Amino acid sequence: LADSPRVAIDAMGGDNAPGEIVAGAAQAAEDGTHVLLVGRGDEISQALADAGASVGPRLEIVEAPDVIAMDDHDPARAIRTKRGSSIGVASRLVKEGRANAVFSAGSTGAALAGAVLETGRIRGVSRPAIAVVLPFPEAPTVLVDAGANADVRAEHVAGFGLLGSTFARIRLGLDTPRVGLLNVGEEPGKGSELAKAAFTLLQSSGLNFIGNVEGRDIPTDRVDVVVTDGFTGNVALKLLEGFGKFIFEQLMKIFSADEESKAAAKVVMPGLAALASTLSPETHGGAHLLGVKGVCIIGHGSSNAAAVRAAVRVASETVEAGLVGEITEALQGEARGEAG
Amino acid sequence: LADSPRVAIDAMGGDNAPGEIVAGAAQAAEDGTHVLLVGRGDEISQALADAGASVGPRLEIVEAPDVIAMDDHDPARAIRTKRGSSIGVASRLVKEGRANAVFSAGSTGAALAGAVLETGRIRGVSRPAIAVVLPFPEAPTVLVDAGANADVRAEHVAGFGLLGSTFARIRLGLDTPRVGLLNVGEEPGKGSELAKAAFTLLQSSGLNFIGNVEGRDIPTDRVDVVVTDGFTGNVALKLLEGFGKFIFEQLMKIFSADEESKAAAKVVMPGLAALASTLSPETHGGAHLLGVKGVCIIGHGSSNAAAVRAAVRVASETVEAGLVGEITEALQGEARGEAG
Repeated sequence: LADSPRVAIDAMGGDNAPGEIVAGAAQAAEDGTHVLLVGRGDEISQALADAGASVGPRLEIVEAPDVIAMDDHDPARAIRTKRGSSIGVASRLVKEGRANAVFSAGSTGAALAGAVLETGRIRGVSRPAIAVVLPFPEAPTVLVDAGANADVRAEHVAGFGLLGSTFARIRLGLDTPRVGLLNVGEEPGKGSELAKAAFTLLQSSGLNFIGNVEGRDIPTDRVDVVVTDGFTGNVALKLLEGFGKFIFEQLMKIFSADEESKAAAKVVMPGLAALASTLSPETHGGAHLLGVKGVCIIGHGSSNAAAVRAAVRVASETVEAGLVGEITEALQGEARGEAG
Repeated sequence: LADSPRVAIDAMGGDNAPGEIVAGAAQAAEDGTHVLLVGRGDEISQALADAGASVGPRLEIVEAPDVIAMDDHDPARAIRTKRGSSIGVASRLVKEGRANAVFSAGSTGAALAGAVLETGRIRGVSRPAIAVVLPFPEAPTVLVDAGANADVRAEHVAGFGLLGSTFARIRLGLDTPRVGLLNVGEEPGKGSELAKAAFTLLQSSGLNFIGNVEGRDIPTDRVDVVVTDGFTGNVALKLLEGFGKFIFEQLMKIFSADEESKAAAKVVMPGLAALASTLSPETHGGAHLLGVKGVCIIGHGSSNAAAVRAAVRVASETVEAGLVGEITEALQGEARGEAG
């Protein structure tokens, strides 16, 4: 038990906090993960009682009186000044070795600031980046950076390649993930000045760099890790979310057009539900901030108990797979000029 | 007849050139548009004969012996040096007043270079931009720039807003299109340095600027014109294409799983086919290069006769709606400080 992964959970972050967050954490504790619920003790205790759960050997409460609002304009400043914020305290638990991972469904900016300022960056990482697994059946793809860095230089983008490749080895179980640079054309020499410079750096990175990929390649099996700046990556991620929602709404209209369609819908609905669920943000376990000295997962603001439970499971698996050590090693290998 | 729109068609551009291009052009001439087929006369004549069509009062051949390859690395240089290229000659016909519009399914770079170097920019437009209508049923959206300018400054992005808004008035029939800036968050002050500076310029543009929009808003009815740099826009456009294809492949798998599913599929297939067709690049009439002194439509490389016919119809409608005059007027209004 002492060696099992310990996940610090920002109990106050997210649209459904603390109720759903605490309920999901309690389920995760039942699953066998050691969870630390960070936030206002009285509210957490009440939410635990509402969920029919209680503090136990795998479920602790860590008091943190402050909350950083979703719309706080300067989350880095909030982390520095509100020393008792739930996300700040949760991030500090990782630095102090009391937890191996942190989960928050609160403000992405605050989670980033907490991870960088409290948990700390891995030596050699200048820009931590957000990686998400896009859960295309048979061809899951890691997208990195999905939104941590809106303004970057080429060396940062190349760094995202190393982070994403290491992450894909662990999360997708691939030996040498195929890394592609998101660009506006396939041929070398295409794209923005940033993309062209990143291309050159990735070519000599030692990664399994397959060159440029385009937006249309993301859902295919051509590429395992799609590398881009955090602006483009965030737009792409949210577009997939919005377009998926749109398509399923259109399908529901088609399937409810008349009685015959409704009967037909019943036959294929299990398959459709499975597809929708596979593509849903609630099942794929959140966004990973890579490059800090701990596993850091940022959940969707709308995370419910099931999403929290899934994210804690992913956090636990990622700790056990040794993500931080693998990234540290890959960076040392790169510094020695070896393949990453 | 003399006053009806005249569309110059690059007969040599595209994966299916000249056969499908010429066949589509012949159909467009049947529809009543005056078309000028530009390219190698003997090949065009042969393709016309194959299509059971011939030169007539609405269908001319204009000789152009050279072709710019899809993978030409420097299309601007090719336009300047190969004076007889089909896309260069077609673009020049617009400048000379012999045509009002040009269509090409060939290299996007060559079409851009032809439009800028041969047709010429409208006074006050520093960066022509590509606009596409994303054909979401009930909520079509103009995306601009969808790929002409990979590296831009904020004033260029703001200029795309004026071009896109004018285009949406004409193509979507809206009085005051809602213009949104594609960004990584909704709140003012979010995003890259480029996005923040473009936000400020758009706020004082006189356009109906609704602020930042995110990737997930693109398929919704929140916004009519989504403005972004050509790198992000191109990635988004191709991602929509690839994800749409992916979803329909998954649906076909679900619908062919067993006999019961196949029977169910027959009931809803007309609705699905209509949705797929609405979202297909072949029916929505190509990408418009805005800001040059003529209507310029760039078709998908895979354009078939039906796509060419649809694009020529759109070109003809856009000429009749007076796109170039409207953009010129909007720019003069802007120069005078009026609403665009």
